[in-house]
Amino acid sequence: MSSCLYEGKAKRIYSTDDPDRFRIAYKDEATAFDGEKKAQIEGKGKLNNEISCLIFARLKEAGVTSHWVKRLSETEQLVERVEIIPLEVVVRNIAAGSLVRHLGFEKGRVLNSPIFEWYYKDDDLGDPLINEDHIRELGVASKQQCEQMRTQAIQVNQVLKEIFLSMGITLVDFKLEFGLNSEGKIVLADEISPDTCRLWDKETNEPFDKDLFRFQLGDLQTGYEEIYYRLQGGKQ
Amino acid sequence: MSSCLYEGKAKRIYSTDDPDRFRIAYKDEATAFDGEKKAQIEGKGKLNNEISCLIFARLKEAGVTSHWVKRLSETEQLVERVEIIPLEVVVRNIAAGSLVRHLGFEKGRVLNSPIFEWYYKDDDLGDPLINEDHIRELGVASKQQCEQMRTQAIQVNQVLKEIFLSMGITLVDFKLEFGLNSEGKIVLADEISPDTCRLWDKETNEPFDKDLFRFQLGDLQTGYEEIYYRLQGGKQ
Ligand SMILES: Nc1ncnc2c1ncn2[C@@H]1O[C@H](COP(=O)(O)OP(=O)(O)O)[C@@H](O)[C@H]1O
Ligand SMILES: Nc1ncnc2c1ncn2[C@@H]1O[C@H](COP(=O)(O)OP(=O)(O)O)[C@@H](O)[C@H]1O
Ligand SMILES: [Mg+2]
Ligand SMILES: [Mg+2]
Repeated sequence: MSSCLYEGKAKRIYSTDDPDRFRIAYKDEATAFDGEKKAQIEGKGKLNNEISCLIFARLKEAGVTSHWVKRLSETEQLVERVEIIPLEVVVRNIAAGSLVRHLGFEKGRVLNSPIFEWYYKDDDLGDPLINEDHIRELGVASKQQCEQMRTQAIQVNQVLKEIFLSMGITLVDFKLEFGLNSEGKIVLADEISPDTCRLWDKETNEPFDKDLFRFQLGDLQTGYEEIYYRLQGGKQ
Repeated sequence: MSSCLYEGKAKRIYSTDDPDRFRIAYKDEATAFDGEKKAQIEGKGKLNNEISCLIFARLKEAGVTSHWVKRLSETEQLVERVEIIPLEVVVRNIAAGSLVRHLGFEKGRVLNSPIFEWYYKDDDLGDPLINEDHIRELGVASKQQCEQMRTQAIQVNQVLKEIFLSMGITLVDFKLEFGLNSEGKIVLADEISPDTCRLWDKETNEPFDKDLFRFQLGDLQTGYEEIYYRLQGGKQ
């Protein structure tokens, strides 16, 4: 028995026979700007699932655990069930996106050290930027849990930066989500894919990520395929 | 010799014979929403200068130093010259303003403990909310300076809360600015007035502050006069 428990913008969550495991099915839908821009892109679900599986596996090898248990099919993976903490954790190495729009940073500016940001995951409120005082008052995570998420995010950044660099790709920034497992432990969850990372060609700064879709910069599928190819050891 | 060095939205800054002292003249202009809404309100300059002088004097008595040296006239005060740090430091005790607009808090919700926020003081960027990683990357203050501003702001909150409470007024939130004096020390600067604080009647929650003007809730002058009257020991 398995039923769809939740359908999000990019994935469906299914129950499994094991109450502590979920099956995640990646969809072909692409959305941007809080769902205002939408499209079906054939093969996107497969690409993001495969990429996400490879990245979670590489993180595991590097000692960073996550909800990821194993790949189930081209578009599906098995994960640990968690209670998602409604926070988006963003880490930035290079200025892009809101750093450019809201703080006037030059796009591409190499940051002196990574910038860490919390966003409140709430579509109706447009995922606003918040700080740890807001988090305490919202009651979504304790100070100690924030500290744990921050530490893990910095660790993920270290590992991902190296993985991508060795593929000729600059990790500009990325978004993580965390959850609480059945033991109340903080666990890295959701996905890590070109939907949730900004990835630029190291030489040309051309994007391989969702900005292709957001700003019509090129063909999303081609960009994601290149990431998938290189993650498998393909030469650039 | 004295010349106007800077004209802001609410005040003019003049040099004095002493290179370490400025004269600040409070204007009758009221502005809101980044200067989009404007009006001349007779007597506002006097009221804000008198209130600001009384508050800085009370803070000094309580051991919180600031740039304030002395009252010069109805609309003018003498202050220590500082290099303003382009940050707005906001402390909140009760939910209002952006906590309601951006985070969906109910207006008037009593916060479990004060919420502290940093904004980047930049009119062109609309004074965006930021965190200490952004501050480091903007290069506007060191980690240690942030710590000092935070500590002083919390202290100011303690003192102001008590002053206003004894006047039958709830201190909802307020904005501070800090600067560096000639010795490089962090000094509380700018103004503390009903332009920069949200002040509600303890019983009715009626505002006595700039929200009267922002949202046409009533007569600004009457509200500011009531604050001035009570600060001088007048009975409510
Ligand atoms: N291991 C997990 N357990 C429970 N929920 C999860 C897990 N991993 C991710 N989720 C949640 O699954 C939902 C579906 O993902 P997605 O389609 O990206 O949704 P959304 O549109 O909310 O971003 C999200 O709310 C995400 O936080
Ligand atoms: N002690 C001080 N020394 C130097 N500048 C100050 C001092 N106190 C306040 N200022 C600055 O004086 C300027 C004038 O005030 P205001 O009219 O409120 O300007 P604004 O429109 O920039 O808010 C502000 O930029 C403020 O930061
Ligand atoms: Mg999502
Ligand atoms: Mg001002």
